[in-house]
Amino acid sequence: MKVKGQPTRTIWVEAEPAEGRPGSIGIIDQTRLPHRFETTSLRSLDDAVRAIRDMLVRGAPLIGATAAYGVALGLHGDASDARLKTVYDALFATRPTAVNLRWALDEMMRTLQPLPEADREHAAWARAAEIVEEDVAINRRIGENGLALIREIAAKKGDGEPINILTHCNAGWLATVDWGTATAPIYLAHEAGIPVHVWVDETRPRNQGAALTAWELNNHGVPHHVVADNTGGHLMQHGLVDMVIVGTDRTTANGDVCNKIGTYLKALAAHDNGVPFFVALPSPTIDFSLKSGRDIPIEERGAEEMTHVHGKTESGEIGTLQVTPDGSPVVNYGFDVTPARLVTGLITERGVVAAEEEAIAGLFSERRQDAA
Amino acid sequence: MKVKGQPTRTIWVEAEPAEGRPGSIGIIDQTRLPHRFETTSLRSLDDAVRAIRDMLVRGAPLIGATAAYGVALGLHGDASDARLKTVYDALFATRPTAVNLRWALDEMMRTLQPLPEADREHAAWARAAEIVEEDVAINRRIGENGLALIREIAAKKGDGEPINILTHCNAGWLATVDWGTATAPIYLAHEAGIPVHVWVDETRPRNQGAALTAWELNNHGVPHHVVADNTGGHLMQHGLVDMVIVGTDRTTANGDVCNKIGTYLKALAAHDNGVPFFVALPSPTIDFSLKSGRDIPIEERGAEEMTHVHGKTESGEIGTLQVTPDGSPVVNYGFDVTPARLVTGLITERGVVAAEEEAIAGLFSERRQDAA
Repeated sequence: MKVKGQPTRTIWVEAEPAEGRPGSIGIIDQTRLPHRFETTSLRSLDDAVRAIRDMLVRGAPLIGATAAYGVALGLHGDASDARLKTVYDALFATRPTAVNLRWALDEMMRTLQPLPEADREHAAWARAAEIVEEDVAINRRIGENGLALIREIAAKKGDGEPINILTHCNAGWLATVDWGTATAPIYLAHEAGIPVHVWVDETRPRNQGAALTAWELNNHGVPHHVVADNTGGHLMQHGLVDMVIVGTDRTTANGDVCNKIGTYLKALAAHDNGVPFFVALPSPTIDFSLKSGRDIPIEERGAEEMTHVHGKTESGEIGTLQVTPDGSPVVNYGFDVTPARLVTGLITERGVVAAEEEAIAGLFSERRQDAA
Repeated sequence: MKVKGQPTRTIWVEAEPAEGRPGSIGIIDQTRLPHRFETTSLRSLDDAVRAIRDMLVRGAPLIGATAAYGVALGLHGDASDARLKTVYDALFATRPTAVNLRWALDEMMRTLQPLPEADREHAAWARAAEIVEEDVAINRRIGENGLALIREIAAKKGDGEPINILTHCNAGWLATVDWGTATAPIYLAHEAGIPVHVWVDETRPRNQGAALTAWELNNHGVPHHVVADNTGGHLMQHGLVDMVIVGTDRTTANGDVCNKIGTYLKALAAHDNGVPFFVALPSPTIDFSLKSGRDIPIEERGAEEMTHVHGKTESGEIGTLQVTPDGSPVVNYGFDVTPARLVTGLITERGVVAAEEEAIAGLFSERRQDAA
């Protein structure tokens, strides 16, 4: 999407490798957002490892894409089987619980292992580029399927009335290569000239809504307001939300949705006020091996995310403040599970489907058989 | 309640006035909490005006108590009718929408106006002391009525199992003279040896939960954890909340509860998970002139509360950080309305009553007649 008017992705090829020099990949240093827009170059395996481990890139699809290019960078000058294993292990160790990371690395291995060493570096760059383009294409299809829902609401509302969409956390283009998942329908509606306005949940404790989603929307020119996570219910009670669209980290076979902590509360408010509640997701995040959300363990994260807040000081530096009192302990759950009964529909790259076991299985019948 | 082991109130008499010198009132400078515990003395009308206006004291009952003593301080050396009016106007202008402020000032006027000038200063100190003691007594009765509910839950749970209570914002002793409203049952249970554990909602955007409620509980020695506002639903889904107790700014004749933004979301989650949801309130906050919550205008507050966060820097100073991106606007609603259907009961100084028009009117029949 656009940054300062320029179409931008979260990852791009600066230079392919040539005789005597490695290639170069560009990324946005997301640790500096929203207060600084800085890009940086990755020219080696170590650069890629650092970018993922230190969260210069984050979001499952972007981590996968960065790992794929990390393999390509890592094979420069040595594409032996031993080196391939070293590269895989180094990248996998950066964030071992990230599903897309493992998927992208396995995909690269499947492509490269059968090839002669001399062909591997070139093939790695080609396969990484495909992984990136597949992500863009999937998100664009999610966007088109969600756009149809926005058009329906726009048709019911008066001419020129903005469609108010509430979102939680960042399932935006910064978490993917482009478009995002929850934001893809919003960007496409905006491009299509449908007036949209987004309520951006701040998303404590890590503030990804205020920091990343708001930054994205502002740079692309989509009207929005940041609100405290406490606000969504009040907005819905007063008819100020036409639909909710959120992303998901994992959706179970029955349509239960695991997403950033607080998503469940917004789903309850949407249900109580007759507001449609949609979840946008690439189908690989549906985990057919889990029957329901009760089977998902919920990650407890570090206390520092709750006790300290990052932001911009008066002099423009990035700073940190302690917000809780000394001596008061915190608990920091990363995700919650929204039961399928509260979900109006899942927006996937294949279409919008009810959050019900049979409906989901019908749309992705080949996936369910894999899991069986 | 206790601070560093010492029983403490939010306001106290340091010295009554004597020949040739005004009296002195002590308060906690709440703008420094939770990172600094500092007390300050009020020795004049100006001191009292500044304490209320600059929010060194906050919370409706404490504002009322401070205003009452502000009248007493203001009459030193001149207790004429003209001075009485000056004092009233100056204090009223500090926070003109605060209901208790007006009530306390009117109460002081009613007491003082009929008296000869020579008796007014002494009478003002006496009436202010009564107002303070009435607040303490009301909150203690709320606490006793809520304690009975906690005892019921404790009787059902196993021996020694802590009772997990979730609260939102600060309806604690810092908002009153002592005990607090929502916290009064918790403190009394703790004193009675019933093991209680409190989930303290951070309460964005002003963080009164993290800053004030957590500080209170920590100082009094009540076990607790601070959680992001997003967390309560997840906790309730997993059986980790036995009851919710919140305060209220205003409750309407039908039992709809206006309280800090986000209360409604917790009430929805409590309802969805069969967790009892109680509201603790002194009966004067029931507004019999309003039929339902739809009649309550919701205050929109300044953007700075959302865009900036206050806390402690690494070097121990109080600092401020901008957390939202430049160019992203915010909306900041102060309160929401929880419909009576989601409220298990109102804990008042007269007893626990269902959030239903007839039940409330029955308990406070003289009040409803006043409003008619």
